Amino acid sequence: MTIPLSIAWTDGQLVILDQQKLPHEIDYLTLETIEDVYDAILTLKVRGAPAIGIAAAYGLALAAQRHDAETVEAFLHDVRKDALYLGESRPTAVNLMWALDRLLEAVQKAGSVENGKALLIAEAVRIHQEDEASCRQIGEYALSLLEGHKRVMTICNAGSIATAKYGTALAPFHLGSERGRKFEVFACETRPVFQGARLTVWELQQSGVDVTLITDSMAAHTIGAKDIEAIIIGADRIAANGDTANKIGTLNLAILAAAYGIPFYVAAPASTFDITIDSGAKIPIEERKAEEITHIGSQPVAPLGTKVFNPAFDVTPSRFITAIITEKGIIKPDYYQNIPGVLNSYAEKGEK
Amino acid sequence: MTIPLSIAWTDGQLVILDQQKLPHEIDYLTLETIEDVYDAILTLKVRGAPAIGIAAAYGLALAAQRHDAETVEAFLHDVRKDALYLGESRPTAVNLMWALDRLLEAVQKAGSVENGKALLIAEAVRIHQEDEASCRQIGEYALSLLEGHKRVMTICNAGSIATAKYGTALAPFHLGSERGRKFEVFACETRPVFQGARLTVWELQQSGVDVTLITDSMAAHTIGAKDIEAIIIGADRIAANGDTANKIGTLNLAILAAAYGIPFYVAAPASTFDITIDSGAKIPIEERKAEEITHIGSQPVAPLGTKVFNPAFDVTPSRFITAIITEKGIIKPDYYQNIPGVLNSYAEKGEK
Repeated sequence: MTIPLSIAWTDGQLVILDQQKLPHEIDYLTLETIEDVYDAILTLKVRGAPAIGIAAAYGLALAAQRHDAETVEAFLHDVRKDALYLGESRPTAVNLMWALDRLLEAVQKAGSVENGKALLIAEAVRIHQEDEASCRQIGEYALSLLEGHKRVMTICNAGSIATAKYGTALAPFHLGSERGRKFEVFACETRPVFQGARLTVWELQQSGVDVTLITDSMAAHTIGAKDIEAIIIGADRIAANGDTANKIGTLNLAILAAAYGIPFYVAAPASTFDITIDSGAKIPIEERKAEEITHIGSQPVAPLGTKVFNPAFDVTPSRFITAIITEKGIIKPDYYQNIPGVLNSYAEKGEK
Repeated sequence: MTIPLSIAWTDGQLVILDQQKLPHEIDYLTLETIEDVYDAILTLKVRGAPAIGIAAAYGLALAAQRHDAETVEAFLHDVRKDALYLGESRPTAVNLMWALDRLLEAVQKAGSVENGKALLIAEAVRIHQEDEASCRQIGEYALSLLEGHKRVMTICNAGSIATAKYGTALAPFHLGSERGRKFEVFACETRPVFQGARLTVWELQQSGVDVTLITDSMAAHTIGAKDIEAIIIGADRIAANGDTANKIGTLNLAILAAAYGIPFYVAAPASTFDITIDSGAKIPIEERKAEEITHIGSQPVAPLGTKVFNPAFDVTPSRFITAIITEKGIIKPDYYQNIPGVLNSYAEKGEK
């Protein structure tokens, strides 16, 4: 039983898990060129905001090794061009641009072309390692909150394969598995794109976690019938007041948790917070194409031309959230007041 | 625009809509033998408790027309044998046995074989007509409760094609369509078997009702984003205290309705009540096979051998139910006290 990884960097080689083929095929791809990395991100072979950022960072570093510029200026010019190219592979992924920017900043200090190449690889490795450490810390905090609880529900895949390792919402289950602490996880299948059925179930099985698949429609009945003790989910964006945008279906679970009187936890790294917006009302909700709902693969399940409402995310008001678990600490209400303190605590400690 | 019918009896011919082919093919089948009817029920070409009862009644009457018994006794013996055979087509369908029993009782009065054949057809037609009248009356009551409301959510298919006509939860939309009163209906797709996507969407489109398909996971967000004003659903079984068993996913919606402060209506004929059980805790929940969740058609969406929890129904506690709409009247809390009065009112009136 091992925690599955989506990205590995070994002896200068970038290997990724092809998430498009999961769970039916476990296929690892060696990405050799920047075009390979671009394509892997574009076609969702790599998915999950942190994992996309890590893959792009390695992609930029990988491409740089082959540049034969003779001056640092010419080299930096090539690297910047590569970063622009990679940045277009998935323009809405915030972590993608963030990771590329970190590499561009690191490489500014290059004294030579060779030094620049080394700096890029070092920074990519640092991003990768920092994300793993951050997820591990989220897992530790989550484990402390889940103390005494065994049966936990989740939705989507805030998992190891969406990050460097461990994931966010799934981190406590992987850590628990490493330590012989057994959870019973109920994974909602996560319509329309089935990330729960395809990814979370597979990932937790690999890690030796007892996982049961249900449809999203079974959540309420399952909470009652299986005595679910907590719900834990990831986040795409968290506003200054704690309102949390996450995969569609999350809000259903938050309301059910309140009705059943069980805790509802959000697990997410500090980079997920957007304190420039004061509430979830300001988070735009992407609407996706009708075919995600009307078809399963190429097979139609509804009449042709059916009118569809297909929001990709929903926003859970922070009053439904028991705690937000970050790598910098656990945040409890009042969120508006407490978020800045926890997010800044690390920076302050670091400044000493 | 016409309300689709699942069963028609014209000039001694039984024609059914093949619901297994919906929504991709609209195929009507003429059932000529009792074996045809048995097969249509067994293979779910006819579905919905009332529709199954009606089809079985016609099947028994149809078979009887071909019997060449010379005495009434021999004829009744043949008819009883046929009823036993048809009753095995779907043993758990309560309405199936109820309809066959009504025909067997009606035919007891036969003075001759010819008279017996006529009595059977007359009773089948009566069951068919009574169900249509009952659904129409449920629709009228539902329309009165939905007065001033336009945007309504539903799940599964408590529709015209599950009954003689109109359906139960969908009856107000069909009646509204006939009268130029326009609803905007949001249909939950109803995982795992997609009755919402396959049947409700198609049925309401046929009737000219504005219908939008969502996944079950989108219910909470949709109630907020689309300003849903009420939820109306059907029922499989209602206990003496009003607790209601219905398609899995119903309980999610009931809890969301309470959280958003919108009414939650159950629409069902009097025959759905089982006042021999005092609460929903005594309703057994059927668990179905894992493949309904792990596969879509023959296509797997989860790892092979995945552990699954697949309850077919859930039970909504009556405290979440604003009103229960029957053909005999609208029942409001306290249900335990008010159900017997409404259910018996018709019988009492009839006795005068």
